[in-house]
Amino acid sequence: MTPAPPKNFHTSNPETETAIDRTIPDFPAAQLSDEDKYFTHHKPPSYLPDLEDEVKEFIEYHQRNTHKRIVLVTSGGTTVPLENNTVRFIDNFSAGTRGATSAEYFLENGYAVIFLHREFSLLPYSRHYSHTTNCFLDYMTEVNNKVEINPQFADEMLIVLRKYKQAKESNSLLSIPFTTVNQYLYTLKSVSQIMEIVEKKAIFFLAAAVSDFFLPQSRMPTHKIQSQESGGKLEVNLEPVPKFLSRLVDNWAPSALIVSFKLETDNSILIKKAKNALDRYQHQLVIGNLLQTRKKEVVFVTPSGENSWIKLTDDQISKEVEIESLIIPRVIEIHTQWIENK
Amino acid sequence: MTPAPPKNFHTSNPETETAIDRTIPDFPAAQLSDEDKYFTHHKPPSYLPDLEDEVKEFIEYHQRNTHKRIVLVTSGGTTVPLENNTVRFIDNFSAGTRGATSAEYFLENGYAVIFLHREFSLLPYSRHYSHTTNCFLDYMTEVNNKVEINPQFADEMLIVLRKYKQAKESNSLLSIPFTTVNQYLYTLKSVSQIMEIVEKKAIFFLAAAVSDFFLPQSRMPTHKIQSQESGGKLEVNLEPVPKFLSRLVDNWAPSALIVSFKLETDNSILIKKAKNALDRYQHQLVIGNLLQTRKKEVVFVTPSGENSWIKLTDDQISKEVEIESLIIPRVIEIHTQWIENK
Repeated sequence: MTPAPPKNFHTSNPETETAIDRTIPDFPAAQLSDEDKYFTHHKPPSYLPDLEDEVKEFIEYHQRNTHKRIVLVTSGGTTVPLENNTVRFIDNFSAGTRGATSAEYFLENGYAVIFLHREFSLLPYSRHYSHTTNCFLDYMTEVNNKVEINPQFADEMLIVLRKYKQAKESNSLLSIPFTTVNQYLYTLKSVSQIMEIVEKKAIFFLAAAVSDFFLPQSRMPTHKIQSQESGGKLEVNLEPVPKFLSRLVDNWAPSALIVSFKLETDNSILIKKAKNALDRYQHQLVIGNLLQTRKKEVVFVTPSGENSWIKLTDDQISKEVEIESLIIPRVIEIHTQWIENK
Repeated sequence: MTPAPPKNFHTSNPETETAIDRTIPDFPAAQLSDEDKYFTHHKPPSYLPDLEDEVKEFIEYHQRNTHKRIVLVTSGGTTVPLENNTVRFIDNFSAGTRGATSAEYFLENGYAVIFLHREFSLLPYSRHYSHTTNCFLDYMTEVNNKVEINPQFADEMLIVLRKYKQAKESNSLLSIPFTTVNQYLYTLKSVSQIMEIVEKKAIFFLAAAVSDFFLPQSRMPTHKIQSQESGGKLEVNLEPVPKFLSRLVDNWAPSALIVSFKLETDNSILIKKAKNALDRYQHQLVIGNLLQTRKKEVVFVTPSGENSWIKLTDDQISKEVEIESLIIPRVIEIHTQWIENK
């Protein structure tokens, strides 16, 4: 089915903005869920309609021409602005390494990738040359009044460039940005509803670090918070972000394979929290990881009750094997099973 | 004079960490200022001694060989971690455009530049190719199995590369990073004390967006804040960051020209707040700017009481003139006056 375009977009009329979206039958007006309340009280980003057009075109292209499986990879941290003219915001630690790296391995395994990422976080392929201590220009050198690639980097760059051009020329990678948690939530909702046409051939690979808290629009000051107020102290009271994963699983993308991440810093609660998420949202896979060791080990927690660890060996670590090169094939196996069993 | 190395570094002994630094005579033990209390209650970053060595070497090189004036440019926003194993933090909006661009114009005007910047924010020269919507690899193309610069970007890149290599080869640019407000404050203190040897030939050009608030180490939770605590809400209570500018002006760098920035979003309070800063800290120049118009107009507020605006004309805007190309020569004029009058 082609979903109806999400309502409440394009409007600045407060009456139509609080209209109830009757396309979601489970939540009649009298019992609006927290998630639906969120969308009635917060405006969509103004660019969303254009972005929806891009996503539709991308998906239709693959539906018509390549019949590829499609994965939405979310990546990077969301911000929670503390002011309307944003000077200060709360952020979630994430350079986007997991998401950008995973996107590459999905592409290499034949998936079309929608890469929903924090603006200026790492991108597939270019990640090899950004957010490093090397300046971009350190890869360059001047030869006979011409800029050339420094020979010591040239061979590896050719390999990366070819993969990048391949992804671009085959129209297999669509990158779309977000900054705030509000932009993220609206975009996830739109993209997932558009992607539902792909049904079980879709994966949602939710690697973004989404804030658990937000400051409601109604309480946000217009201007920069002045530090002399309240004796120079700052008290910030944030509300919980509604649990959109249940909306995604139940309503927006009920046919897709949904993979969420659980990042903790305390080893003793990691598995329990991953299982809780699975129980609560009834999706297919939680990948657990600790901030301290996330680049060398993760645990797959599935409804079957088995916890399956993926750990890099010392040999793999010394050879700079990326753990995503092991994670993604395993996710794809689970996806293949999912498609066969549906 | 060569300042004594800052105390309290290198130590993890709680007793020596709270020892009073007797090198600052104005604040005896009984009347520790907020700034001094800050340093006794917060640990320096572990990498600080190495960084101090780099700065000393850089300054000594220019003292011995080039006799250049030296500017410390600070750039980008500081973070305030909300957890010890940091997942969440408060950030200040800043890509680092003002600082990175200003650093280039100081270099072109013969200054040696210490560029104290938020890690992964914009850097002088490479800024032309990062944080854009273009991927790094879009500047590249493959010709005969070799990576080459796409011809449409090659000419401009050659100009930028030459300036970058010139800055590097003349050892005129030292880039040092920070992330948290604690790292920023310790580094500013160390660098300014080392720079005092340059006396009046030094400028402090403080373009970084430094948090006005912080969470004291003593109140910081070790692990990721759990969202189910207190019904999913989050209450953050922050303390005011002590006013280090007075310490810089009075103690750390009393001979240098000190330029601070005032960024507001509300036009009606901009000048007043700039004047207040000048009255309070008794330094030489506040550059005021509004978030909304900061790329096309700024105001110089000086102790003389005159407010002098720098505004790009429509013609300059259409030609993409950078406002820093007007700001920096004006700052240098003020610096020349400062040197002559001292």
